[in-house]
Amino acid sequence: MILHTPIADERTMANAIRALAMDAVQAANSGHPGMPMGMADVASVLFNRFVTLDPTAPDWPNRDRFVLSAGHGSMLLYAIHHLLGYDDMGMDQLRAFRQLGSRTAGHPEYGHAKGIEMTTGPLGQGIATAVGMALSERLGHARFPGLIDHFTYVIAGDGCLMEGISQEALDLAGHLGLGHLIVLWDDNKITIDGDTDLATSTDQLARFAASGWHVLSCDGHTPTEIADAIEAARKDPRPSLIACRTVIGFGAPNKQGGHDVHGAPLGAEEIAAARAHLGWTHAPFEIPASVYAAWARVARRGTEARAAWEARLASAPDRHEFNALRGKDLTGFTAAMADYKQRLLSDKPKVATRKASEMALGVVNGTLPLMIGGSADLTGSNLTRTKGQTSVRPGDFTGDYLHYGVREHGMAAAMNGIALAGLFRPYGGTFLAFADYARPAIRLAALMGVPTVFVMTHDSIGLGEDGPTHQPVEILASLRAIPNLTVLRPADAVETAEAWEIAVAATDGPVLLALSRQNLPLLRAEAGENLTARGAYLLRDPGERQVTLIATGSEVDLAVKAAEALAAEGIRAAVVSAPSFEHFARQSDAYRAAVLGQAPRIGVEAAIRMGWDSLLRSTDAFVGMNGFGASAAAPALYEHFGITPQAVVETAKSLI
Amino acid sequence: MILHTPIADERTMANAIRALAMDAVQAANSGHPGMPMGMADVASVLFNRFVTLDPTAPDWPNRDRFVLSAGHGSMLLYAIHHLLGYDDMGMDQLRAFRQLGSRTAGHPEYGHAKGIEMTTGPLGQGIATAVGMALSERLGHARFPGLIDHFTYVIAGDGCLMEGISQEALDLAGHLGLGHLIVLWDDNKITIDGDTDLATSTDQLARFAASGWHVLSCDGHTPTEIADAIEAARKDPRPSLIACRTVIGFGAPNKQGGHDVHGAPLGAEEIAAARAHLGWTHAPFEIPASVYAAWARVARRGTEARAAWEARLASAPDRHEFNALRGKDLTGFTAAMADYKQRLLSDKPKVATRKASEMALGVVNGTLPLMIGGSADLTGSNLTRTKGQTSVRPGDFTGDYLHYGVREHGMAAAMNGIALAGLFRPYGGTFLAFADYARPAIRLAALMGVPTVFVMTHDSIGLGEDGPTHQPVEILASLRAIPNLTVLRPADAVETAEAWEIAVAATDGPVLLALSRQNLPLLRAEAGENLTARGAYLLRDPGERQVTLIATGSEVDLAVKAAEALAAEGIRAAVVSAPSFEHFARQSDAYRAAVLGQAPRIGVEAAIRMGWDSLLRSTDAFVGMNGFGASAAAPALYEHFGITPQAVVETAKSLI
Repeated sequence: MILHTPIADERTMANAIRALAMDAVQAANSGHPGMPMGMADVASVLFNRFVTLDPTAPDWPNRDRFVLSAGHGSMLLYAIHHLLGYDDMGMDQLRAFRQLGSRTAGHPEYGHAKGIEMTTGPLGQGIATAVGMALSERLGHARFPGLIDHFTYVIAGDGCLMEGISQEALDLAGHLGLGHLIVLWDDNKITIDGDTDLATSTDQLARFAASGWHVLSCDGHTPTEIADAIEAARKDPRPSLIACRTVIGFGAPNKQGGHDVHGAPLGAEEIAAARAHLGWTHAPFEIPASVYAAWARVARRGTEARAAWEARLASAPDRHEFNALRGKDLTGFTAAMADYKQRLLSDKPKVATRKASEMALGVVNGTLPLMIGGSADLTGSNLTRTKGQTSVRPGDFTGDYLHYGVREHGMAAAMNGIALAGLFRPYGGTFLAFADYARPAIRLAALMGVPTVFVMTHDSIGLGEDGPTHQPVEILASLRAIPNLTVLRPADAVETAEAWEIAVAATDGPVLLALSRQNLPLLRAEAGENLTARGAYLLRDPGERQVTLIATGSEVDLAVKAAEALAAEGIRAAVVSAPSFEHFARQSDAYRAAVLGQAPRIGVEAAIRMGWDSLLRSTDAFVGMNGFGASAAAPALYEHFGITPQAVVETAKSLI
Repeated sequence: MILHTPIADERTMANAIRALAMDAVQAANSGHPGMPMGMADVASVLFNRFVTLDPTAPDWPNRDRFVLSAGHGSMLLYAIHHLLGYDDMGMDQLRAFRQLGSRTAGHPEYGHAKGIEMTTGPLGQGIATAVGMALSERLGHARFPGLIDHFTYVIAGDGCLMEGISQEALDLAGHLGLGHLIVLWDDNKITIDGDTDLATSTDQLARFAASGWHVLSCDGHTPTEIADAIEAARKDPRPSLIACRTVIGFGAPNKQGGHDVHGAPLGAEEIAAARAHLGWTHAPFEIPASVYAAWARVARRGTEARAAWEARLASAPDRHEFNALRGKDLTGFTAAMADYKQRLLSDKPKVATRKASEMALGVVNGTLPLMIGGSADLTGSNLTRTKGQTSVRPGDFTGDYLHYGVREHGMAAAMNGIALAGLFRPYGGTFLAFADYARPAIRLAALMGVPTVFVMTHDSIGLGEDGPTHQPVEILASLRAIPNLTVLRPADAVETAEAWEIAVAATDGPVLLALSRQNLPLLRAEAGENLTARGAYLLRDPGERQVTLIATGSEVDLAVKAAEALAAEGIRAAVVSAPSFEHFARQSDAYRAAVLGQAPRIGVEAAIRMGWDSLLRSTDAFVGMNGFGASAAAPALYEHFGITPQAVVETAKSLI
């Protein structure tokens, strides 16, 4: 099925990429020509002989994935997509490279154009996210061997391999044996500051081999060597790293091989010299028909493969299960969750919200085969694993629970990859304080609009003795700051169940659950409407209120106690539970006004005040933290930092 | 000089650590006995035979550094410090382990007690920070070979080695050849979730060797093997990794070797069994005189070594230079900077603040030999390197500029280590968007109160075409959220110079400069008082104001333009430049009121509004970002997102 194109043709296919890259960067007067020109031969051989995808069906589940981890080389991707005939990547888009409103942003942006598998640019994210895609492929293959069986290819640069996240990713991939993952390393020995030997002496092949990878090298400008290496990588049961020795900016005769060619236009003179050097006689943004024909053959191969796959699917005995997975069918879940919430109302469990999360997850995982759980080595603390879940192990992908290791960043990126792959819904746990370790991947999930679910327990000084390194005080604010991330801090078991309903149903952005270590009473008296989805709601309504106490998570109980103490003194305090500032911001003005009321307000959260200005006015008060926490038992800390019902009562009296 | 104590004594010294660890964790009913008990033999041999420090002079610059990267094993450190006779680590402190107000926090907290070299707990930070300490030692040795020449020892666990930051750290250490760095890996094959083979198959020795480390193994419970390994490590010119094969919880006969012993008290029964098993007949918190005597000998060796060193210093020809470095003497700098700022007023440079930073750094580096610069492979973009600086290279530590590689996290931690080591003042650059990659180390600097300087350029959508992955919109807010971190966003060359004055003089916390990619005019007309240190000040005072425009960094010029446009329409607008919210918060109420005024206010910043509630009232307005940026030229983006003088003018008119 794979036709071996003559070498000359592949070089010409590559030169088309080079020409488009240098011309588009020149036109934009901004961008990175070095990588696309250096890796054009590798990319051409890879696509010409191996990659199977259908530009007319970019969401085909069994397509090969191609991730440009070195995202600054975006013109490589745009040029390929143009040449392959993606219908939204006409020459007008290449001409508009890096211009407002174009699909050809400086770095590839997921959702901006078809076929962009993920947003890349922040180095290391691509390779780590691709690990998740390759993991999803193996999980899918284990369940649907006839329907999911493809490769995940990555082009990574030196920067990707220097970032620490690459180690977390490669360790996980090597351990699990993700044999369908192939990383093509652009081994050009150049970084922005100069030669790579300014900053690293690592033998990358030895490093990857130490984590169980299949490693090999090739000359990145010799098609036969490239093809042989990829062929060998595809056959090996381990994930493969291919060191492609390349010349950065290959083809620009006076600049290639130097770091100046990395991130600036070549200039008209050097572009002319490159054209002469490469024998490329065509005008800027002009591609001869023979090159289009060569790339069209690649696309056709993919289209045919997809048609064959669709035929297989139509008669597959497990097609209903597959389509249910693909369609994120929530049948069964909704009713089971409604039942569970009703049971909560009668059982009234007093449990930590991390425990309530485990209970809700029991319903989720019991009814939804699409869930893939995990934790960054804190399973027993995060309570992310439910009865019946089995561990994914090296070579055995029938399980549905990942031991991600002490690798919060790698976990978050891998989960993004699983979510992007489109079959499963990933969730994974760590301590909320360590959200910082995973933050670049959380941000990327938000930017891409990918529904990854982060389960973050031990969400305040309420974790107690582990002390300030482990106690989030500013972390909630810093997460609420990320656009398009939904932060949910439920107050009891009902809100936690509602939070999981939101997380499971999310489609256009990540969801983060902040959960307590300490036990909390059931506060809700009814569980019909998902009130957590309102963002904030009136939990205790005293009628004509004199003060409004607004709290989240573990501090809602504290606010309720304060309201009761105030009531004993004849002061009517409303209590608002505010599990999600983002959801509340989306409610109508009328609803928001009704919840917040006109009375003086007191925000209560065992965290800093930043971020509360959407709920509090200048004249309102806040009971919370002003700085880092301390090491002591949780009750002693709440007392020490003055986050108590009594403090709220006194503040209320001072306001009214 | 080093006396070889009989093996039996070292085991008893170790058993004292074990007993104190299990008893303190039991008393606290919280904590981690597994690591201290497992590594007690290694620690005892290490201290007994090798570590040179003086408990009576914990700040002695040439002491060996000991970093407990696996910070959850804090009782190992506290027990050792007690046994060595640190005068603030009496038995009362061990009895108060993890209690409010004690020096014995759940994880070692820098500054809480003498001899704690750094705060650890977030995994991987210790090893990466120790790289900075070991680097500082080599830098110091290159300048003062007779005065600085010591070792940096680290105890790291599996979790430390799984975190990505460990790769950034070991790559840098191996590359530079930090031969006085010795990492003792607690190779116990246990993590919280269970055996390490749940999540990793990495051959750690091969991995470290791939980055140029000297690697070796020993049985972690056989003193001769431990000593031989450390001896060999000290002799090797490369950094060394010693895999110490240990049994977690060694000595607890029924629990050792399992993951349950990691992070929970052993219980009274198992503690009794351990006492019997170890032949430890003493009551809880009771240490026999013979054990104290053994540890006192270690302390005495250090005290003698320090006395000899003080004598050497007193007659060293370069003692004045050394003491100037140690004392952070700013002589020469203050005057030179004052001159420079005056020159700015006449030159009126229109430069990006990243360029202004380079100019100011010229003055800083030209007058202060204590500065150690660097960048995470963005030197030409961050403009962190000034004329005359030379690169630190493998084996050559005479330079003063580091090529940290594409390793923001490792750079930040290494800088923390340099700052903690006490001789030099480190600064390092990256893009502001990638502060997220370094965030756990930035947080730790803030928590420790260490004056690391972060130079973060390309600080808004003003960076243009690289697009949303590279454009901070929420990053400023998320950094301002970190307690004890000073964020400075200067508006012009004078404010940038003032920012560097603040950074250089900082003693009790990190400073982060957010700098523009795009050019900005000089706005300041005088440069006497450091107004940036005020946090915010009146830049344009129209007399009786009708509206106050408050802006930071690159948006101050925009606010000035808006004020001029308003003036043309007869509206009096004051312009407040607010380079540091943290500094402004520390000003008197009267000063703050005078600057902010009573008129309606408009905040202007090309970032999200979060964090502005300290400056804006509910009725005030904000012109900024609501979500992620986009890829286009900077002017097009400002227009697109409505951050323009015209938008400010219209907002002002709507308010007054």
